[in-house]
Amino acid sequence: MRIVIDGMGGDNAPMAPVAGSVEALKIYNDLEICLTGPEDKINEELSKYDFDKSRIKVLNTTEVISTNEHPVKALRRKKDSSLVVALNLVKNKEYDAVISAGSTGAFLAGCTLIVGRIKGIERPALGPIMPGKNGPFMVIDSGANVDCKPNYLLQFGKMGKVYCETILNEKNPKVGLINIGEEEAKGNELTKTAYVLLKENEANFCGNVEPRDIPNGDVQVLVCDGFVGNTVLKMYEGVASTLLSTLKEEIMSTKRGMIGGLMIKPAVKGMKKRFDYKEYGGAPFLGVDGICVKAHGSSDMKAFKNAIRQAVTLKENNTIQKIKEEFENCD
Amino acid sequence: MRIVIDGMGGDNAPMAPVAGSVEALKIYNDLEICLTGPEDKINEELSKYDFDKSRIKVLNTTEVISTNEHPVKALRRKKDSSLVVALNLVKNKEYDAVISAGSTGAFLAGCTLIVGRIKGIERPALGPIMPGKNGPFMVIDSGANVDCKPNYLLQFGKMGKVYCETILNEKNPKVGLINIGEEEAKGNELTKTAYVLLKENEANFCGNVEPRDIPNGDVQVLVCDGFVGNTVLKMYEGVASTLLSTLKEEIMSTKRGMIGGLMIKPAVKGMKKRFDYKEYGGAPFLGVDGICVKAHGSSDMKAFKNAIRQAVTLKENNTIQKIKEEFENCD
Repeated sequence: MRIVIDGMGGDNAPMAPVAGSVEALKIYNDLEICLTGPEDKINEELSKYDFDKSRIKVLNTTEVISTNEHPVKALRRKKDSSLVVALNLVKNKEYDAVISAGSTGAFLAGCTLIVGRIKGIERPALGPIMPGKNGPFMVIDSGANVDCKPNYLLQFGKMGKVYCETILNEKNPKVGLINIGEEEAKGNELTKTAYVLLKENEANFCGNVEPRDIPNGDVQVLVCDGFVGNTVLKMYEGVASTLLSTLKEEIMSTKRGMIGGLMIKPAVKGMKKRFDYKEYGGAPFLGVDGICVKAHGSSDMKAFKNAIRQAVTLKENNTIQKIKEEFENCD
Repeated sequence: MRIVIDGMGGDNAPMAPVAGSVEALKIYNDLEICLTGPEDKINEELSKYDFDKSRIKVLNTTEVISTNEHPVKALRRKKDSSLVVALNLVKNKEYDAVISAGSTGAFLAGCTLIVGRIKGIERPALGPIMPGKNGPFMVIDSGANVDCKPNYLLQFGKMGKVYCETILNEKNPKVGLINIGEEEAKGNELTKTAYVLLKENEANFCGNVEPRDIPNGDVQVLVCDGFVGNTVLKMYEGVASTLLSTLKEEIMSTKRGMIGGLMIKPAVKGMKKRFDYKEYGGAPFLGVDGICVKAHGSSDMKAFKNAIRQAVTLKENNTIQKIKEEFENCD
């Protein structure tokens, strides 16, 4: 298994990608990693660790794409960027998977333009795994396609299903449509038509899922357009952090609360662990002809290590091939 | 001030509408209320209370529209329903305001079809007030219009601004556009165009607001289409209840946690009070030519009392007239 990692992607680069790579080597014996980026910087980080030098290669690149650049323009101009060089290694089948915590826009555009789509798939989609109360779930698409046609949503559902079968080890993952009502007739033009397509063409489709039920995690694949999916993820994050910080304020406002607060610390820690999205690695970009994982911009060593685990699992389970077969059978 | 209340709307009808009406009489001296519904049932509830009989009138109606009926069909068929009769009283200017906790679809359709739109307004919108960490905010539209044109969003922003000026007592409420990125160029076709319209035509426009920042309550008027708005509200509700129930589970799983849990009870109560949406009454349906307030289906006495307060404030501040003026000045 060969993985290329954008050594300059993310807020904590190159420290976090380097540290995560070294950690992952310890777990996976047949893993080989290539880190792209300025040789001197990457090697300086690597020099802090003790590891088998034959298993990590550094590929020198001279440019970096930042998050505030126009994605497509940056991809065209910066041919020697850590991202573009990494993507080309997957395109040429020299590496099995690519991971980046850098600009989401540039990564998604690069995967589509350089690695390329799987035949039959209209729009690749980003599908992060989120922690729910009763189990993890995927929100697909969560930001790659902000304006969608109903058929895209059907395809998102099918790709998500194949992914959850392999990665979450769910034999029959439920596929639901994020909608503002439970009944078939509810929703906007997009969801009403997508409902019919999913009902007729996806055996695992279980109907509409109202946003208030999403955090329960009872439905594994949640289908939506990228605008709605991104809104769902960001509301999840925002409400959780606002509630917890307000609770903390209230607790700290009295002596009694402060003592109680100390006593429930393990409980709060337990809850945070149950909702730690870093456990699930990055967000797979599904529908492209290679394993492409977008790690969160704020990824630390642990998040990179888990993103690598995710790429390994995708390879071991032959997920990309299974997605291809799902779409061959459809036609 | 004369308010008509759908006496059969909501999960707790007719108890809650009756109890809320009686309570409100104690606060507002010049308030007169009409309750629509089956005379015998409403009077039976009223008989439990001691109040000035001249200030509450019961108007006998024989039909009730349920939440699972097709809104427009139900409005046409059930002319003698508690809702349709109430709406006609506002249309004929016999009453200043209407409140219902019944079917949202039927209420919104009825307000538009029976009470009628304000001239110049393309689509009336539902704008509930939500509790935020740093203050309340309005999400407009939150479900009345699931497919929107950019100009609708501009109008939602202007109506929300007028409402927040009068009801929230904000001299210069900030108007923001719910979007998946802060920069102007972010979003889908709808939000990109709406951004330009808002920037050019609404002085209080402060740019995009990412969903993760919504619960802070730093922006008072949050503009979006009804699908996104409904998703935001339901995620707010779902994440909050999932997090709190998970925290409770973790707390109750150890003895130490249980003791700590008892000690932070007042803090939890304090936090819940800060996020109690019932404090703000119902959701005003803005853009129709009358004061129309949709109360939550689960409204209790307190929620009805606050919805009545809201209607009184709207009347006292001449909000409908101010919305009319805002749209006259636009043309």
